[in-house]
Amino acid sequence: MTPFSAIFVPQELREAVSDPAWLQGMLDAERALANAGAALDLIPADAAVRIAGACRAELFDAAAIADAGREVGNPAEPLVRELRKAVGDAADYVHLGATSQDIVDTAAMLVSRRALELVVRQLDRLGAECAALARAHRSTPMAARTLLQQAVPTTFGLKAAGWLVAVVEARTRVEAVREERLAAQLGGAAGTLAALGDRGLEIVRLYAEELTLAEPVLPWHASRRPVAEIGAALTAAADAAEKVGGDIALLAQTEVAEVAEADGGRSSTMPQKQNPVGSALAVANARLAKAHAGILLGSPAHEHERGVGGWHAEWEALAGALAFGGGAAARAADAATGLKVDTERMRTNLDASGGLVVAERISFALTPRLGRVGAHEVVAEAARAASFRDALLADERVDLAPEELDELLDAPGYLGTAEALVDRALARYEAAHT
Amino acid sequence: MTPFSAIFVPQELREAVSDPAWLQGMLDAERALANAGAALDLIPADAAVRIAGACRAELFDAAAIADAGREVGNPAEPLVRELRKAVGDAADYVHLGATSQDIVDTAAMLVSRRALELVVRQLDRLGAECAALARAHRSTPMAARTLLQQAVPTTFGLKAAGWLVAVVEARTRVEAVREERLAAQLGGAAGTLAALGDRGLEIVRLYAEELTLAEPVLPWHASRRPVAEIGAALTAAADAAEKVGGDIALLAQTEVAEVAEADGGRSSTMPQKQNPVGSALAVANARLAKAHAGILLGSPAHEHERGVGGWHAEWEALAGALAFGGGAAARAADAATGLKVDTERMRTNLDASGGLVVAERISFALTPRLGRVGAHEVVAEAARAASFRDALLADERVDLAPEELDELLDAPGYLGTAEALVDRALARYEAAHT
Amino acid sequence: MTPFSAIFVPQELREAVSDPAWLQGMLDAERALANAGAALDLIPADAAVRIAGACRAELFDAAAIADAGREVGNPAEPLVRELRKAVGDAADYVHLGATSQDIVDTAAMLVSRRALELVVRQLDRLGAECAALARAHRSTPMAARTLLQQAVPTTFGLKAAGWLVAVVEARTRVEAVREERLAAQLGGAAGTLAALGDRGLEIVRLYAEELTLAEPVLPWHASRRPVAEIGAALTAAADAAEKVGGDIALLAQTEVAEVAEADGGRSSTMPQKQNPVGSALAVANARLAKAHAGILLGSPAHEHERGVGGWHAEWEALAGALAFGGGAAARAADAATGLKVDTERMRTNLDASGGLVVAERISFALTPRLGRVGAHEVVAEAARAASFRDALLADERVDLAPEELDELLDAPGYLGTAEALVDRALARYEAAHT
Amino acid sequence: MTPFSAIFVPQELREAVSDPAWLQGMLDAERALANAGAALDLIPADAAVRIAGACRAELFDAAAIADAGREVGNPAEPLVRELRKAVGDAADYVHLGATSQDIVDTAAMLVSRRALELVVRQLDRLGAECAALARAHRSTPMAARTLLQQAVPTTFGLKAAGWLVAVVEARTRVEAVREERLAAQLGGAAGTLAALGDRGLEIVRLYAEELTLAEPVLPWHASRRPVAEIGAALTAAADAAEKVGGDIALLAQTEVAEVAEADGGRSSTMPQKQNPVGSALAVANARLAKAHAGILLGSPAHEHERGVGGWHAEWEALAGALAFGGGAAARAADAATGLKVDTERMRTNLDASGGLVVAERISFALTPRLGRVGAHEVVAEAARAASFRDALLADERVDLAPEELDELLDAPGYLGTAEALVDRALARYEAAHT
Repeated sequence: MTPFSAIFVPQELREAVSDPAWLQGMLDAERALANAGAALDLIPADAAVRIAGACRAELFDAAAIADAGREVGNPAEPLVRELRKAVGDAADYVHLGATSQDIVDTAAMLVSRRALELVVRQLDRLGAECAALARAHRSTPMAARTLLQQAVPTTFGLKAAGWLVAVVEARTRVEAVREERLAAQLGGAAGTLAALGDRGLEIVRLYAEELTLAEPVLPWHASRRPVAEIGAALTAAADAAEKVGGDIALLAQTEVAEVAEADGGRSSTMPQKQNPVGSALAVANARLAKAHAGILLGSPAHEHERGVGGWHAEWEALAGALAFGGGAAARAADAATGLKVDTERMRTNLDASGGLVVAERISFALTPRLGRVGAHEVVAEAARAASFRDALLADERVDLAPEELDELLDAPGYLGTAEALVDRALARYEAAHT
Repeated sequence: MTPFSAIFVPQELREAVSDPAWLQGMLDAERALANAGAALDLIPADAAVRIAGACRAELFDAAAIADAGREVGNPAEPLVRELRKAVGDAADYVHLGATSQDIVDTAAMLVSRRALELVVRQLDRLGAECAALARAHRSTPMAARTLLQQAVPTTFGLKAAGWLVAVVEARTRVEAVREERLAAQLGGAAGTLAALGDRGLEIVRLYAEELTLAEPVLPWHASRRPVAEIGAALTAAADAAEKVGGDIALLAQTEVAEVAEADGGRSSTMPQKQNPVGSALAVANARLAKAHAGILLGSPAHEHERGVGGWHAEWEALAGALAFGGGAAARAADAATGLKVDTERMRTNLDASGGLVVAERISFALTPRLGRVGAHEVVAEAARAASFRDALLADERVDLAPEELDELLDAPGYLGTAEALVDRALARYEAAHT
Repeated sequence: MTPFSAIFVPQELREAVSDPAWLQGMLDAERALANAGAALDLIPADAAVRIAGACRAELFDAAAIADAGREVGNPAEPLVRELRKAVGDAADYVHLGATSQDIVDTAAMLVSRRALELVVRQLDRLGAECAALARAHRSTPMAARTLLQQAVPTTFGLKAAGWLVAVVEARTRVEAVREERLAAQLGGAAGTLAALGDRGLEIVRLYAEELTLAEPVLPWHASRRPVAEIGAALTAAADAAEKVGGDIALLAQTEVAEVAEADGGRSSTMPQKQNPVGSALAVANARLAKAHAGILLGSPAHEHERGVGGWHAEWEALAGALAFGGGAAARAADAATGLKVDTERMRTNLDASGGLVVAERISFALTPRLGRVGAHEVVAEAARAASFRDALLADERVDLAPEELDELLDAPGYLGTAEALVDRALARYEAAHT
Repeated sequence: MTPFSAIFVPQELREAVSDPAWLQGMLDAERALANAGAALDLIPADAAVRIAGACRAELFDAAAIADAGREVGNPAEPLVRELRKAVGDAADYVHLGATSQDIVDTAAMLVSRRALELVVRQLDRLGAECAALARAHRSTPMAARTLLQQAVPTTFGLKAAGWLVAVVEARTRVEAVREERLAAQLGGAAGTLAALGDRGLEIVRLYAEELTLAEPVLPWHASRRPVAEIGAALTAAADAAEKVGGDIALLAQTEVAEVAEADGGRSSTMPQKQNPVGSALAVANARLAKAHAGILLGSPAHEHERGVGGWHAEWEALAGALAFGGGAAARAADAATGLKVDTERMRTNLDASGGLVVAERISFALTPRLGRVGAHEVVAEAARAASFRDALLADERVDLAPEELDELLDAPGYLGTAEALVDRALARYEAAHT
């Protein structure tokens, strides 16, 4: 349902959440179940071999399975029927003690694992670009802007370091979920594993092991934290990417012109346009990722031992959150890669206000004599004059020599701890990557 | 990004929001533009003919266009390039005075028009089923339930009439949007139609006419009410469908068993299960439709004359809202079609409480003598006894003869205006359909 | 639950959704019910008079009622108990045939009616400001910006006209809901009006009439379109306000500086700052309004004849959507009122690119000779040079005399139908207001 | 903006997010800043003492500060002004090097810390109730239900254990955020700490230490993960509570009647009603909590160094998420406390289907002879007969003696690993609490 999805999401990520990928996830679950059963002598070893051999997505018709799934409300039931057909005598040993939800939920975890790996890869691309910018522009002065107004000087490196910290946090968050929260699902018809007699817990353990998924305390049929946690982690990735895209688009504004994307997009009608396409797509992907994650995070509780509709709605939400979350990171990385940074323009913009951007500094300099409130007032008054500098020099309450004032008005002299903060962010990034 | 989408959305609706459908919508926009240009002698008539002839989706490669669209952030720019290649000498007359957003937004309206028509068709199926149930069960007594507790008697017809009224309202809402709010988009580079000189308004009028879309007061590049209104209408459709699905699933509970879907879904492990699959899928679709509509309705304002990302995020949201909105109605109609209604069980459930379900009525009957509060207390006390009837008869404050009490305790005698309300709902439905 | 709510929402709107306002709404419902009962001789006339006399919020303790409401899950039940105490002998005639939900839902409609009136008032303030700006700056040239890049010239009037059209549409939408969709709720215990015998429909009619609310086809206990429609209308108001606030904040950026709010907000530390406070608060309110409306629009279907929790969650959502929706319009109006428009700066920004902003126009001028694609290329190439004009003049493919080129490069000469569109928007606004 | 908030949220939690609590949080931040300044000799020790002495919320008028905050868009600026007035000569040392956002964001963390503590307390109440139910009903057979249909037997203990695991996870999640993610905010005007010269990093460290908040890598002005993470944790709490409330309401249905809340709520008109009020309010609170958390999780990226509106919208969202998140846990705990569990009714419901609830078991028993598909068919056929048992006995393909069949049909004999799973969940709970 995503028109022109190639615009948004890298191909390998689209593939990772495609029907064949889900199909393979379901088949992996069936294979693991058969192998676990064989390991416990619940099914013959050769049946397990035969089942495992048939658990390859390319042997099945995903479209036909989806069509058949409509009648039963899920794709696992028709897949199990097809798989049974495919394995001849081993048919009776297929899907041992499982229910459809076991298979679909486990597939969701396997699909997520692969897709989250790709999300991490895109976050790494993005992080590397942000780190490079933070390093290169550690001391490049530019205006910081609050409420979109120039506030005080900062460095472009600190801005990029802010992006970087968010990317590192998101990566940590995504990795933590990928490593700890992806849990095998096996509960049988309704979470008691009854069809497995007294071997239920053992088979769950082996099943989880084979799939290298976590073994949950209880089956999570009706407690959807695993999918919600994936959603939450992807909002962190989307946020980090959206911040980069959003800031680049703002800095690339014609009137600001401090950065430009390397490959600005063409317009169909305006020859001069160099659109911040990567940024726009990062933002779009991020919004879509957060909206899909929001379905997972905001879903009403599932009824009893399986939800009526709430469960079924998760599949699209999960696939979308993964695809667009990774798409956001990918497009933000595209935007940041080769970013053209115009340090002169940054300086010009910083100086354009004739010192207003360091009004705070002047105010602090005057405080010992005028008091904080008095100093604030004097400076605010001068800020409304045609020339801030001249007005200050003309004000008799101001006891600063012209050269003293000029030094204070020099924006790059008022960077505070910007550079130290960049170092701190880079150190953390490097620590996380070695 | 929708795993196993055939489970949720009917095929023709999936096609209506597919890439080829969007492509055709864009081509229809280009064709209309060329024809409008020819009508005003802005381009040669034969160029318009040539362009119109090439505006067929099957002549283009949707996947390649999506791929190429990544660089520029939209599919219209590469399509225009391909279209120019396809029309030879007429190339210069393609895309006259338009910008990519004009083409994509107009396509969105055309896609919506077709998809909304299919949504209406599904709502009509659903409405017809609800009306039939309301008519057939106008006087079939059942328990009304508030907070999931039996409250007082109602009729199954009134419940179905409630469903019907919501379906009719949703249909009206969807139709109103389809007929009045789908607006042509043509503003040129940024909404001034500058490339069309002084013919801008005329060409917009002709363009809208050819497409039979509304002519907006202003181009709506950055004012997204048309898409938001589509979203809002689809939430009405989703709500109506979810209510039917949700109520059917509740009524079909094993312990309630008042209805069953005609084609209850198989379980992969439990032979007895007759799952309310249509209902579950109606609910799932409805949740997905509302979430996608929520992206349209909750989107931050677009910046200046075109949004940075907000615009791009709409395509998936719109396609999803349309597909799942229609899917919700379709699956609810599936659930309602041939619904097995067990009127005896309804009566059994109604009588199971030994008259508690008409406790309100007894309370009113005692009010003249005991006062409202006193009567409420007497009845509440009896309600906690083993037998409500016996406790009432044994209570000396109750001045009712046994036969008098038994008449009051007869649940079907306490239906109030249920039947008249059913008639009212059916009259309205019929008025809307003739 | 809204910290520092006075920052966001005007006082009268906060009062309109406050507990006392809800209390009065519930009491109005009880009064109307008593009067309707008296009119039909179901209760004595003097009882109705007595009840009506007691139906004044100031006679009740809202906090105590909320506290007592916890046990029963709603405020109506304890209110009815208090009201009965307050009317002596008339106690038995209070709450005739109604259930708690009837009273709370009807109160929700009455609260909404009053609050929507205030929302409309704020939209009118905002509309008047936008209209004044559109009129005053009908022909003031400025850069239109797509994807935050200068695109082509437009006029500030056209931008303001775009705001205006959205405000007018939102006002129309809100008014339509206020006049047509606010429906009386009276269904008795579960929608059958059983406690009213055969007078149910008559009493509903009188009840609705007294409250001047619409009479619904059926009681809407479990079909929540009236509240959803209020939510949908408020998203239109929020969108309109957010667009104004968002655009003003962008135009007020230090580097753009085309507008400034009349009362820019102080910073606690930076003396020079003139923050676009009204705009920021318009945006904040809009996001909160849309999120609250989203609860109403995205709510799962209510179960059977009354929702388990879904109903209760509506109260906060509705109050928030109303308050923040109106707050958005109010703060956007604050931002627009007395807006300082720097038309010189608009012109400077427009000219700053040395003609790039009309590159489209040059491209069209060259098309007859070079073909569309050729012209686009020539112009795109020149756009990358240091001087666009010089590069064009130096390019032998360009057959334009310098004076001819200069005329084409004059941005205000390329406004297309901007002024005509402003006139159209103003005409529509004026038509709606006379 | 929350009508009748006492119905939803416990008083101490309402107080924890009230204006006075935010005010105190802001004052705590100012106090910590003064103390840190004094420790580094940036301000005189006695000034810090004086400031600290004045940093008590009861000395300020929260309503007046909110009113004054409207002009500047935040409550910190007017508070700083009032605080300066209150400290006489120490005025110049107030708010040293900070900006309004530092103060408000730090207050948000302090408010969250206190409120999250109360949320944890409510989760603990809820967890204790769930654990007690799991323990007491470890072996109490009942029907598990998937898609609201009886599936196979389970135990009520396992259902309660499922609730418990979710509560424990939510508690862990909330505690982790409370202990690790609540970060001090101090960046000065725009994140460089410029006004603190070269002492910026030291003062941040001391400031964070005094407040016992984490010291962030960078100031998080424009990177809102701390608030988003609070939101995400609260969705876990809301989910856990909603599941308990939702399941109780379903089990309490008149036709199911397996549990009843200890204090069922009165109806204003129906004397017999025992509404599951705690459950309904748990669900309502949970939905409101998730919607408010959704604002935090779905917010667009903040612009540059401070968001335009996105920042301001957080306050209500955060307060609401905290209050309703805790309210959800509180009301779910109310619902679970003293829950009346009707184990006989559980058994009756389980047996009502005449063995259908163990159809899966019969199918497995027949598989060795008939094959899986064959067995499934035989059983499915019998399931449609009037008597499942008789049909099975009459079917010649079934080779089970009556007594053998009866043993298989005994539902409590088919509990699988239910009890072992309960033990596992309880062990984990106990481990987390000792």
